[in-house]
Amino acid sequence: MFSQRLSEAAAAVEAHLALVMEGYGTLPVVEAMRYGARGGKRLRAFLVLESARLHSVEAARAIWPAAAIEAMHAYSLVHDDLPCMDDDDLRRGLPTVHIAWDEATAVLAGDALQALAFELAAHPGCGPPEVRAELALSLARAAGAGGMVRGQALDMAAETAVEPLTLAGITELQAGKTGALFEWSACAGARLAGADIAPLSAYAQGLGLAFQIADDILDVEGDAAKTGKAVGKDAAAGKATFVSLLGLDAARRRARDLVESACAALDPYGKRAESLREAARFVIAREH
Amino acid sequence: MFSQRLSEAAAAVEAHLALVMEGYGTLPVVEAMRYGARGGKRLRAFLVLESARLHSVEAARAIWPAAAIEAMHAYSLVHDDLPCMDDDDLRRGLPTVHIAWDEATAVLAGDALQALAFELAAHPGCGPPEVRAELALSLARAAGAGGMVRGQALDMAAETAVEPLTLAGITELQAGKTGALFEWSACAGARLAGADIAPLSAYAQGLGLAFQIADDILDVEGDAAKTGKAVGKDAAAGKATFVSLLGLDAARRRARDLVESACAALDPYGKRAESLREAARFVIAREH
Repeated sequence: MFSQRLSEAAAAVEAHLALVMEGYGTLPVVEAMRYGARGGKRLRAFLVLESARLHSVEAARAIWPAAAIEAMHAYSLVHDDLPCMDDDDLRRGLPTVHIAWDEATAVLAGDALQALAFELAAHPGCGPPEVRAELALSLARAAGAGGMVRGQALDMAAETAVEPLTLAGITELQAGKTGALFEWSACAGARLAGADIAPLSAYAQGLGLAFQIADDILDVEGDAAKTGKAVGKDAAAGKATFVSLLGLDAARRRARDLVESACAALDPYGKRAESLREAARFVIAREH
Repeated sequence: MFSQRLSEAAAAVEAHLALVMEGYGTLPVVEAMRYGARGGKRLRAFLVLESARLHSVEAARAIWPAAAIEAMHAYSLVHDDLPCMDDDDLRRGLPTVHIAWDEATAVLAGDALQALAFELAAHPGCGPPEVRAELALSLARAAGAGGMVRGQALDMAAETAVEPLTLAGITELQAGKTGALFEWSACAGARLAGADIAPLSAYAQGLGLAFQIADDILDVEGDAAKTGKAVGKDAAAGKATFVSLLGLDAARRRARDLVESACAALDPYGKRAESLREAARFVIAREH
């Protein structure tokens, strides 16, 4: 059920992003936006659509925040890959935006993708004004200096710090860097319905951290052909990761525990949340 | 009246930005956000506060979108100054963010300032949900690939184009690059009040274009000590500007005509809009 719904979510969000970007014309920056926003697993969009389904929100409304979070995620990847940041030439097996175009185009395309994320989150398609206002406000908090950017900044600070990161430090870093957008995605369905976000928030926190631990494991064990990016980068850079701090076995165990508690947080929804539980199990079993 | 209200607006928005960024701590990225968001004329904030006053909206509500637009403007400057963009070392007489910190910090600080702009525009402090939703949606459209980023992209395309820009081309470019945020600022007061934005939109279009023509004139005639940035850059780069296309005298005349029509657009507001008319006259008389 999960894998089918994940591909349905991917197809739906792909089509919606293409539609909303249709009016922007054919400037290189716009082509770079489309390129930067293509592909990926669309796990965040899936979380939006599934949490909306849990609350019986129509898919035609949920697709707006689903596309919003994928635009936001895409912007963060385009900027992350820049030479002054992670300096990556390859993303999902293809040249990164600043390689396919140039740095200036990558900066601007990322900037425009972030603006697009807010356009979609505040769009009348999401529903009544209080829903749009809350989606936009919470998205801004998840993306900004108290959320995703904070995680990035902690990551940068760690690179030049004398002391390596502790487990608490790397957990805080990841709560911002990847956790904040995951949490927004999972809570979006409750926000669309005006319902309590607490169970989905708890679920997403476990899921996000498990996702990151799995990423660290893939960096050690992964197959570059499957992940579509260079592996072994973190170890080569001497970066503290969940694997370097815990060891492989304990990292795997920790990820499994987090998935278990994420699933348990969905108890109030009963069997209806099964696809979200499958998603949590998927993030630690994936090969890319 | 105008100059006093402009300094009051500057002081109020400075204090509000400091307040909302208090909770972000002291990471270098956050210090860079504060640094990048400091100073400037705060003309956009003034437009928000004055248009709100025209509609009898309390200043305590208007300060939120006023701070939002200054955060947005600040992000655009931080990214514009990057080596891959305009490559400027100096802004408002001080080192630019990537000089004072580094490129990665400048990219991230700009990203976080954009997110902050949306946090402020969607904030409950702005008023009822429909106001917050419309402020956020319209801000996203003004900032993104149909607005400011589009203007930037047209500017970049012009640099490598075989044919120099025409007057229509440069007008379109500036409508995005500077006009979109001016228009949003001037319309914010009407949006806060749920009133018609048409007169303020017409006013801002004239004002924005006049502002840019004045900038082009300052680039030719300005005093680097007063403008706080290098002058003669556009001519040295062989860039088409309003001055290179029209000549100095006709450019001055065009700016005056635009200011006149901007002022006339405010007729429905009568004498109460006098400070906005003064603002329009100011933008073509300023020395920096």
